[in-house]
Amino acid sequence: MRTSIATVSLSGSLTEKLTAASRAGFDGVEIFENDLLASPLTPEEIRARCADLGLSIDLYQPMRDIEAVPVEEFARNLRRARHKFELMRRLGADTVLVCSSVHPLAVDDDALAADHLRQLADSAEEFGIRVAYEALAWGRHVNTYGHAWRIVEAADHPALGTCLDSFHILSRGSDPKGVADIPGEKIFYLQLADAPLLAMDVLQWSRHYRCFPGQGGFDVAGLVRNVLDTGYDGPLSLEVFNDVFRQAEAGPTAVDAHRSLLVLQETVGVATPPAPVVPTGVAFAELVTPDAEPVAAVLGALGFARTARHRTKPVDLWRQGEARILVNTSGAARRTGTGLAAIGLESPDPAGAARRAEALLAPVLPRRRAAEDAPLDAVAAPDGTELFFCATDRPELPDWRDDFADDTGVSHGTEGTRGSHGTGGFHGTGGSHGTGVHRIDHLALTQPWHHFDEAALFHRSVLGLHAQESVDVADPYGLMRSRAVTNADGSVRIALGVGAAPTDDTVHAQHIALATSDVVAAARRFREAGGRLLPIPANYYDDLAARHEFADGELETYRDLGILYDRDAHGEFRHCYTMTVGRVFFELVQRDGYRGYGAQNAPVRLAAQHTARAVIGG
Amino acid sequence: MRTSIATVSLSGSLTEKLTAASRAGFDGVEIFENDLLASPLTPEEIRARCADLGLSIDLYQPMRDIEAVPVEEFARNLRRARHKFELMRRLGADTVLVCSSVHPLAVDDDALAADHLRQLADSAEEFGIRVAYEALAWGRHVNTYGHAWRIVEAADHPALGTCLDSFHILSRGSDPKGVADIPGEKIFYLQLADAPLLAMDVLQWSRHYRCFPGQGGFDVAGLVRNVLDTGYDGPLSLEVFNDVFRQAEAGPTAVDAHRSLLVLQETVGVATPPAPVVPTGVAFAELVTPDAEPVAAVLGALGFARTARHRTKPVDLWRQGEARILVNTSGAARRTGTGLAAIGLESPDPAGAARRAEALLAPVLPRRRAAEDAPLDAVAAPDGTELFFCATDRPELPDWRDDFADDTGVSHGTEGTRGSHGTGGFHGTGGSHGTGVHRIDHLALTQPWHHFDEAALFHRSVLGLHAQESVDVADPYGLMRSRAVTNADGSVRIALGVGAAPTDDTVHAQHIALATSDVVAAARRFREAGGRLLPIPANYYDDLAARHEFADGELETYRDLGILYDRDAHGEFRHCYTMTVGRVFFELVQRDGYRGYGAQNAPVRLAAQHTARAVIGG
Repeated sequence: MRTSIATVSLSGSLTEKLTAASRAGFDGVEIFENDLLASPLTPEEIRARCADLGLSIDLYQPMRDIEAVPVEEFARNLRRARHKFELMRRLGADTVLVCSSVHPLAVDDDALAADHLRQLADSAEEFGIRVAYEALAWGRHVNTYGHAWRIVEAADHPALGTCLDSFHILSRGSDPKGVADIPGEKIFYLQLADAPLLAMDVLQWSRHYRCFPGQGGFDVAGLVRNVLDTGYDGPLSLEVFNDVFRQAEAGPTAVDAHRSLLVLQETVGVATPPAPVVPTGVAFAELVTPDAEPVAAVLGALGFARTARHRTKPVDLWRQGEARILVNTSGAARRTGTGLAAIGLESPDPAGAARRAEALLAPVLPRRRAAEDAPLDAVAAPDGTELFFCATDRPELPDWRDDFADDTGVSHGTEGTRGSHGTGGFHGTGGSHGTGVHRIDHLALTQPWHHFDEAALFHRSVLGLHAQESVDVADPYGLMRSRAVTNADGSVRIALGVGAAPTDDTVHAQHIALATSDVVAAARRFREAGGRLLPIPANYYDDLAARHEFADGELETYRDLGILYDRDAHGEFRHCYTMTVGRVFFELVQRDGYRGYGAQNAPVRLAAQHTARAVIGG
Repeated sequence: MRTSIATVSLSGSLTEKLTAASRAGFDGVEIFENDLLASPLTPEEIRARCADLGLSIDLYQPMRDIEAVPVEEFARNLRRARHKFELMRRLGADTVLVCSSVHPLAVDDDALAADHLRQLADSAEEFGIRVAYEALAWGRHVNTYGHAWRIVEAADHPALGTCLDSFHILSRGSDPKGVADIPGEKIFYLQLADAPLLAMDVLQWSRHYRCFPGQGGFDVAGLVRNVLDTGYDGPLSLEVFNDVFRQAEAGPTAVDAHRSLLVLQETVGVATPPAPVVPTGVAFAELVTPDAEPVAAVLGALGFARTARHRTKPVDLWRQGEARILVNTSGAARRTGTGLAAIGLESPDPAGAARRAEALLAPVLPRRRAAEDAPLDAVAAPDGTELFFCATDRPELPDWRDDFADDTGVSHGTEGTRGSHGTGGFHGTGGSHGTGVHRIDHLALTQPWHHFDEAALFHRSVLGLHAQESVDVADPYGLMRSRAVTNADGSVRIALGVGAAPTDDTVHAQHIALATSDVVAAARRFREAGGRLLPIPANYYDDLAARHEFADGELETYRDLGILYDRDAHGEFRHCYTMTVGRVFFELVQRDGYRGYGAQNAPVRLAAQHTARAVIGG
């Protein structure tokens, strides 16, 4: 189906908005009047610009407070409307949106409203223009789509139809099944927006909190199905008022917007992009760093062994159990400092996963970083993290470790066949004591502030992961949000986090959480090997003692090591943190059935990290 | 009365919060449990720190889900409570807050609730602690203060009283008069917060949008009067959960917070700071600039004449009618670029105005900037703008212009006695054509993002100005807010503005609006004198033609000059803008009864300024 977006959904000048919409793949735009008024381009120039960009102008909007007003007011409205029809002729737009009146003098008289709209449609018809009448959720007398349709039906004019808007329909809890009563050819336009389920004034909700389909709590797809069943064949058009999008760069927002429509079309069955290939595990996490020593010291103390090196690049492979971490000291890290740059996702079909990602507008990375490298399928996530779709120990597929060799020059692709999950059998530098880490439990990634909601949609739609509820976490210097995306068995868990505000200078560091079956033993060995654990305030343990009962000495052990504790309906959780290196730290977690991420403990951890930074002056 | 503040109201570590509260003049604090848990200080160290800072610990909070729960749950609660009472003993805190239960298993049984609270109070009493029971607005069964009091009354225990919280009472629309039924000695604590009147879920409203008394829409003072009438003599304590305050520096927030309590005490008649001295006009606006030439060029073209120079400093006085602008090229401007640094407010009693400001915690500036200067009373506004309280042409008071001399060395304090409001009689550089500017209409100041609401309270309480409604203005790159403060006759108008987010890089420039009785003539003369007006898009005028009827040629004139038009119930408004110099631009306004500030036109103006910057590469 054709896709369109209202210019009000994007940030910047009209030119910037049009360019972004075109590049993201939209077929058309709705021109929001204020964007036109503020533009130095004439209507003819805007028309030409859209044509150059391959965009149709599907709607001009909005006209307000037209109908059911006093006679002299309506005369002024008709006069104003003719000006706008003339403008639309210059613009080459053939449909205008009329919102149901909120005028204080508007009367509750459907016959009068129908008469006024009929007169308006008469005037529009002279210009070859169609009028799409829409019920605002806060319209003075007309605020449901059924009511708007009854007035359109009564007016009975070929140039008059209705516009349906998912926000106005679903925010009021109207049943979308009633759409079946409207003939498809009388639905002149369909505007789509989702929204988080907030209990608030519907006008404020609409003006500030709309989001793209799939990012909120509405069943937008259900409504679209109802509309398509009528035979509607106009565009699927996004109209999203959102304070965050107003500030965000138009380019990425437009891409996120178009992706949401692609997913929506897949959901309702009118498009069939390549099916999602859900990752089945984490093959590796890749750190970039300008200086391998501090990272190597922590990994060594954590019991990782450096088992292999990339054949052509300064990338080391560290391993413990099934947890694999690449340490990359190539040039890029000099600019960005130590950080988490890439994730290897174990994929049943790497090429298929990449095709899915590409179809959903994820930037595809070159399959070979260098001529001599094995080909690897990879895309960039919205936060810039590189996602590699790869295979480990699967004979039918190339192994990503083929590019790595151990000190004897033996390809590392054979590693897994040795059948060992310990580290003792490997050669390499670093600790050989082991801390019982058997795999990566989860990865925590900081998201760009303006694109947090899109990040969850990306991981959900592109990777086929399940997005959990978003939780607020109190940092001493602001409120942060966190949302996890996981696969069904929890073998892939990514916690997406975002700071309180664009300037949040409380660095929300990325981290790698390592699963161990005995966090106390792991923490002890880490410390014995010279590792530094994040100290946790004593007051935290006094509170734990007040909340739970522990075995003798248990709490003292936790206090000594800085181990935090939580429980949920499914089990217990014990975890501790290393000090931060650059922007990254590590967490050791013992997850005995527990399904969360220790959000309850995050404020204490964040405060402790602030304290640690203040102490070391970082 | 004693003043207190909950640590949750301020940003930072517990130490930072305590220091900020003490410096701002609070007598005590409520310690929020999470702040204690996250602190590396022991309870004894916190107690000592508070003592050093002259702060009492008035409340420890909160205990949750204590009462009316199943028996084994209540046993755990009592056990936990004893841990907390022991902690409070170490802390030296003698009152604990218990919030009404939101536990899913809590039952609607007042007798059971009373019994549980009585048992809790028994336990507390052993530690010399009092329990203050408070109805949360979203409490499962107990959500009104009257209900909480009935339970406290039924429990009838000397260590059990109630805590009143203005948010929980006023957000539910409860009538505060019922407070009279509670004996003052059974009100153990009074927490105060205001909030904007939002129609939203009360829990979200409370957790994210509370503000200090006087900043929102609640009648907090009315409630406080009711509480004081009972004989309550505990502290007035602020408990404000606010996403913005969480991010703001604790120091300024604490000062704003304490000011709100000082004003509240004045309002309810328990404190009598010096009375407000409302300014009666704008004596001058002072620009600082590293380079006087560009500013002089604009002022000259605007018809201002440079009429005098400061005797000892590089400050020129420019004048036209009663509009006076100082141009200061001293060192400070080299760092900050061209900007609006100070406002001279015509004051009936400059010394009294300064005393008021000082009593309300405004930083007082040295009365003499240099030994040889005349003394001037001045304070700093929250945004750093210096506010001078001064007199012009009032024989009984020293004239601020005594420090200025014209080219002949004659003191400029005599200027007004010449009886001329034109510029022709003055010597000096700059345009002598005049543009009919007769005074400064208003000044627009950008506020620090985290302190926008406080800025309005400052201008209202310190200067005695009236704060108008806040309006949202759509900038192409974000949503901005603007709020005007004025005196009764409109001779002092200050528009306080703030960008969409802390990082808003769409510079919200400051501006000086100059009143003229003929904006067309003024704009023409400005342009003839070489001034550059901000070009306004042609589309804007097409829209004006659609909305209003104009005399022949009128619209063409506006279009030619870039004059914008608006009207309200009181009259018409015509205005235009100069190009920006540094962070400042000028507006010429013709206000024929109109009372607003052209907010309707602000999006077009902002877009035009973005376009102009893009063109000149600024």
